[in-house]
Amino acid sequence: MDQIGVGIIGTGFMGRAHALAYGAAASTFPGLPRPKLVAIADIVPDAARAAAEQFGFAQWHTDWRRIVEDPSIGIVSITTPNLLHHDMAVAAARAGKHIHCEKPLAQDAVVARAMMQAAEAAGVKTQVGFNYLKNPVLKLAREMIADSELGEITGFRGIHAEDFMASPQVPWGWRLDPAGGTGALADLGSHIIALARFLLGPIERLTADLETVVKDRPVAAGSGERRKVEVDDIARLTVRFARGCGGTLEANWMATGRKMHLAFEVSGTKGGLVFSQERFNELQWYRAGDDPRLSGFTRIEAGPQHPPYRHFCIAPGHQIGFNDLKTIEVAEFLDCIAGGPACGPDFREAWEVQKVIDAAVAASHGRSWQTID
Amino acid sequence: MDQIGVGIIGTGFMGRAHALAYGAAASTFPGLPRPKLVAIADIVPDAARAAAEQFGFAQWHTDWRRIVEDPSIGIVSITTPNLLHHDMAVAAARAGKHIHCEKPLAQDAVVARAMMQAAEAAGVKTQVGFNYLKNPVLKLAREMIADSELGEITGFRGIHAEDFMASPQVPWGWRLDPAGGTGALADLGSHIIALARFLLGPIERLTADLETVVKDRPVAAGSGERRKVEVDDIARLTVRFARGCGGTLEANWMATGRKMHLAFEVSGTKGGLVFSQERFNELQWYRAGDDPRLSGFTRIEAGPQHPPYRHFCIAPGHQIGFNDLKTIEVAEFLDCIAGGPACGPDFREAWEVQKVIDAAVAASHGRSWQTID
Amino acid sequence: MDQIGVGIIGTGFMGRAHALAYGAAASTFPGLPRPKLVAIADIVPDAARAAAEQFGFAQWHTDWRRIVEDPSIGIVSITTPNLLHHDMAVAAARAGKHIHCEKPLAQDAVVARAMMQAAEAAGVKTQVGFNYLKNPVLKLAREMIADSELGEITGFRGIHAEDFMASPQVPWGWRLDPAGGTGALADLGSHIIALARFLLGPIERLTADLETVVKDRPVAAGSGERRKVEVDDIARLTVRFARGCGGTLEANWMATGRKMHLAFEVSGTKGGLVFSQERFNELQWYRAGDDPRLSGFTRIEAGPQHPPYRHFCIAPGHQIGFNDLKTIEVAEFLDCIAGGPACGPDFREAWEVQKVIDAAVAASHGRSWQTID
Amino acid sequence: MDQIGVGIIGTGFMGRAHALAYGAAASTFPGLPRPKLVAIADIVPDAARAAAEQFGFAQWHTDWRRIVEDPSIGIVSITTPNLLHHDMAVAAARAGKHIHCEKPLAQDAVVARAMMQAAEAAGVKTQVGFNYLKNPVLKLAREMIADSELGEITGFRGIHAEDFMASPQVPWGWRLDPAGGTGALADLGSHIIALARFLLGPIERLTADLETVVKDRPVAAGSGERRKVEVDDIARLTVRFARGCGGTLEANWMATGRKMHLAFEVSGTKGGLVFSQERFNELQWYRAGDDPRLSGFTRIEAGPQHPPYRHFCIAPGHQIGFNDLKTIEVAEFLDCIAGGPACGPDFREAWEVQKVIDAAVAASHGRSWQTID
Repeated sequence: MDQIGVGIIGTGFMGRAHALAYGAAASTFPGLPRPKLVAIADIVPDAARAAAEQFGFAQWHTDWRRIVEDPSIGIVSITTPNLLHHDMAVAAARAGKHIHCEKPLAQDAVVARAMMQAAEAAGVKTQVGFNYLKNPVLKLAREMIADSELGEITGFRGIHAEDFMASPQVPWGWRLDPAGGTGALADLGSHIIALARFLLGPIERLTADLETVVKDRPVAAGSGERRKVEVDDIARLTVRFARGCGGTLEANWMATGRKMHLAFEVSGTKGGLVFSQERFNELQWYRAGDDPRLSGFTRIEAGPQHPPYRHFCIAPGHQIGFNDLKTIEVAEFLDCIAGGPACGPDFREAWEVQKVIDAAVAASHGRSWQTID
Repeated sequence: MDQIGVGIIGTGFMGRAHALAYGAAASTFPGLPRPKLVAIADIVPDAARAAAEQFGFAQWHTDWRRIVEDPSIGIVSITTPNLLHHDMAVAAARAGKHIHCEKPLAQDAVVARAMMQAAEAAGVKTQVGFNYLKNPVLKLAREMIADSELGEITGFRGIHAEDFMASPQVPWGWRLDPAGGTGALADLGSHIIALARFLLGPIERLTADLETVVKDRPVAAGSGERRKVEVDDIARLTVRFARGCGGTLEANWMATGRKMHLAFEVSGTKGGLVFSQERFNELQWYRAGDDPRLSGFTRIEAGPQHPPYRHFCIAPGHQIGFNDLKTIEVAEFLDCIAGGPACGPDFREAWEVQKVIDAAVAASHGRSWQTID
Repeated sequence: MDQIGVGIIGTGFMGRAHALAYGAAASTFPGLPRPKLVAIADIVPDAARAAAEQFGFAQWHTDWRRIVEDPSIGIVSITTPNLLHHDMAVAAARAGKHIHCEKPLAQDAVVARAMMQAAEAAGVKTQVGFNYLKNPVLKLAREMIADSELGEITGFRGIHAEDFMASPQVPWGWRLDPAGGTGALADLGSHIIALARFLLGPIERLTADLETVVKDRPVAAGSGERRKVEVDDIARLTVRFARGCGGTLEANWMATGRKMHLAFEVSGTKGGLVFSQERFNELQWYRAGDDPRLSGFTRIEAGPQHPPYRHFCIAPGHQIGFNDLKTIEVAEFLDCIAGGPACGPDFREAWEVQKVIDAAVAASHGRSWQTID
Repeated sequence: MDQIGVGIIGTGFMGRAHALAYGAAASTFPGLPRPKLVAIADIVPDAARAAAEQFGFAQWHTDWRRIVEDPSIGIVSITTPNLLHHDMAVAAARAGKHIHCEKPLAQDAVVARAMMQAAEAAGVKTQVGFNYLKNPVLKLAREMIADSELGEITGFRGIHAEDFMASPQVPWGWRLDPAGGTGALADLGSHIIALARFLLGPIERLTADLETVVKDRPVAAGSGERRKVEVDDIARLTVRFARGCGGTLEANWMATGRKMHLAFEVSGTKGGLVFSQERFNELQWYRAGDDPRLSGFTRIEAGPQHPPYRHFCIAPGHQIGFNDLKTIEVAEFLDCIAGGPACGPDFREAWEVQKVIDAAVAASHGRSWQTID
């Protein structure tokens, strides 16, 4: 397979990011199927047309079904609000398309499972946009944990904090629609849940406290009319992993001053790691047992020795950017489609993430602990 | 009152810190009653004798009651393991001594209340050794929150993490004695609970997960014999403050690489603060609403504009050290005894801290939420 | 002009970076002439062929003159060792091509001037690869200085330090060929000189100390045969700017541990800025005269409010990477060719940088101060 | 020798720091001669009286000669402006007193040598207040360099930057009196010169650029009358050490935003160290040759494994403060007087520092390189 047709649904923040990534993948990762930018869709005609022109898609549509039905398209990329994911993904699966879908996968685990089942029944490959996991230093972190570099893991503290909803004047928007699932927990929490699982494996049980801090918001910027908010602004989870250790996870879109604080600290009997997406080309590592005069956290800077950094630059310390994470995501998906290993996270993994979210909702409502099967 | 006699019980880590602080207080904070170092006690005669000589105490004893009974002593400083605090404090109170006691105050809230009641009945002043609260930049943080500099507070994330118990080879010790109360939660958690209350006021309800990570430890360093551990190595609390906001608190003495990570982030609708004792002469502050081109977290360095830093140095950025925090604690206690404001934390406040600890234990055992009355 | 043909000479580190940037420019910066990847050249046939395939060039050559002579090519990108730049650039200029040349422009100011004169005589646009200047937060820094946000500038301290030559076992290579000019001063120093000029304008006079630390190096990795090193490993410049203030500049490729420490601190009577390429999505800013209780360095994170960040991402804090800097460089060059403002640095500016380098060499040899005309 | 009488001349910033340090030394460092606070002098009677009372001196004087003549005094501590040091030190030496003198030792090397000769002729011990050298992590840095932990040293970059003179509105003061020697170079530069020598040994030759940025200043705060400034605000030195490597040193009291940026980076073929007094309980260390996946700068936090930190605290990461550095300085001087090793810096070393300052002045005036004999 030399080439594969790509169709993208949605032209917003993530639609653009996908378009850039599919455009960059072939030059950055030679040897993979070369994406051919076939079509892009948006319900707003001008948006669709402009995106097609900007990113070099041959066609644009206002009806996403045109993408799904196009025989020249092999990959359907879904970047719409998550409430819309199910119908698109199921249709794409039935049409035999590989599916690249943004996170969170669905509004709840039931829907996510249906999507997964549709994809697995159709035998198509799937990829969900947890792009932060594609970071070379987080791949290193996972390897270090897997290789027992930290000894036995004793605790995890993870958070995804931003501040784009911190002001009570930020208006109501689709992220607040309870039909789409939870609020900060879905939007940001799904990332830190996925990251926790990426590093440490399944979460077995949890309790949680979901909080709606701003009770109502303007219906639009500057409007005096207000609409009730029913989803969480902050979610605080206390978890136990199946491997035995415990931890906490927080999702918070009211963390004033934080723009991209997807962060964690993981401790083991022999070492510890500290990370924040605020400086995502770095990983802090402490190794117990070194000469105590000289021990401390080491700031590891990403370099070509940390795959796949070298695809972007052969010199260390030059740094990759956010869009490069998305390019890695696309490249790994292309590789998987071409018969390489499934790097994921796929729909099955995203369903697991969704189960954690659902359990957190139940735990918070019930003031209880919930077990995740 | 020009002078006041001081007797210290205990010559360990905290006994030494108290001795240094009482020795330094008069020179650093002129105008306060000058501490006269009357006596120091330790059950080990050599330790008591050596400490008296080193720190300039006129007398040393092996029986702490000699301190309590000495009419020339006005302040009794208690620095022993917390299981011993009650009897010493009650005796001191009955003898009319002001009491400076290390934290945690007691093994549980019932005992703490008895100590508080004894002190209040005797009309003596009390001070509990939550020395980290004496930090000039944390006084600033409290003022900023009280002055609504951060707007309405929306969340708090606090932790006290160290790693002195991280290795399973660290032997059993008095901090692990369940008769003394909890483990990391008492030893470290009491600090972050006190700090959370210092900044944000009472905690109304909580849930918690206490975990004993290392199930047994050598009875002594290098020993093959092991003793069961029954207290928590890690405690994870999810809380709601009476003022309305939520937060998390963690106590963890297995956080490999962390030596003094007493840290928090507090967010409000108009700003945020980030702090770690690892760099305790700094406070990070974000103000919402500034020119977005130029906004970000500002690293405030402690200086003479942050009381009582100027008592140590008239130039900014020179930094105070840990022992200086203890000197401030002593100075504020001396001032309180001389009729100044009660800066605390006093026994009543330490009892409140203990109630949070007890509620966390109950919540963890019951897998439930607990309300703190 | 809708489209413009591009030919790249060289397929090494910078050849690849240019290829990626020309490939990404149209999608990232809509509205500019769309680069058409016509041809790429390398004296090694396999390298040329592989690069053409990877990056999507229609043709590949082993003779760079084929690029210069191709009428369908409007931009010639020169990424070879700098000793080769002159002949290529002059030929390209005579052929009426716009020229995008890597830094340092030439081996000395005489050659650089000849290149500049050839380009200006031909009326072609030029751009030199000082990509670090394309950083949104450095554009902000320049604006702040120009707008007197820092008051009167009182000092500058700049450095470009890396460690790729730190080990005496690193073998001799083309960067050490004295025919190509200086060593670290050309390779790294040109960046910090360009950055100093970008922020503060012309350097009027200087003294310098150039040092060859490792006197000879293996002729190849692992070889016992050694070749004499005649160029500087470290260059230390003390400068006075035409605007009146002084400063220091250092180029150092033996700074063990430093991977990309292109850094500066600039101070003025009303503020200061601190920057390092190690965390190049951040700029530290101090404003004098703020409330002293709350003043400190503010860590500004790059976001869409800092042009042209928003072309890469609409959300703050997501970060751009090294290749994105190169994409901005290409986009600005395309815009200039299409009639937009000349963002530079062009050959004239690169000639000015070269004059500083030459003056430093003369100052170091003569143990004197040199004036730059 | 169980006890030694101490007399302090001066009650300003440093007079207070000395008084606190002599008061704390015995308790912090047992086993040394116990300082007896005999007398303190200041030409302002109220200042002398208040200091005596605050710090516990038995007597106070307005004439410093009373200190020198007092037979019960064994150590004379000189904390006045440096123009006054010579007469006091020579008188103290002749009276057989050990001398603890603030830095810079004198207005120039000629005077410093006279002081040194007087002390050596009298056989008294001397100590100069380069307190920053007493930092446990800088002692570690020196050991690491001496033990070749960094390999062969290839470069040093040092600075002492503060901002207390950054505003042109800061009035004229004694630090600007040219009779006292240089400006920032003496006040701050002496520290970084002493530190460079402490780590790397003698400086053999140098060139320098001294700059008076603010040409005149108000005679007093708010005054409209201005007085010409004749000393340097910024001094930039390029040096070669006798051991062979080069470096730069900067003194700058106009570095807006910097409160205590005494900082350096030292590189060797096998490692590097980075330090700033802004976070002086930390030392950053890079070791070449480690596993490249895991290498980076390690942030070493001061702890009891770094002598003499343990005298202040037995637990790591608790941090010492500025006054503690002064206490170490006093303790080491007491130990030296009692027959222990001379830790210095003594008058001889301070004379060497002064020679570097004088050479820098000559180099700057002559626009030349100067050799230091």
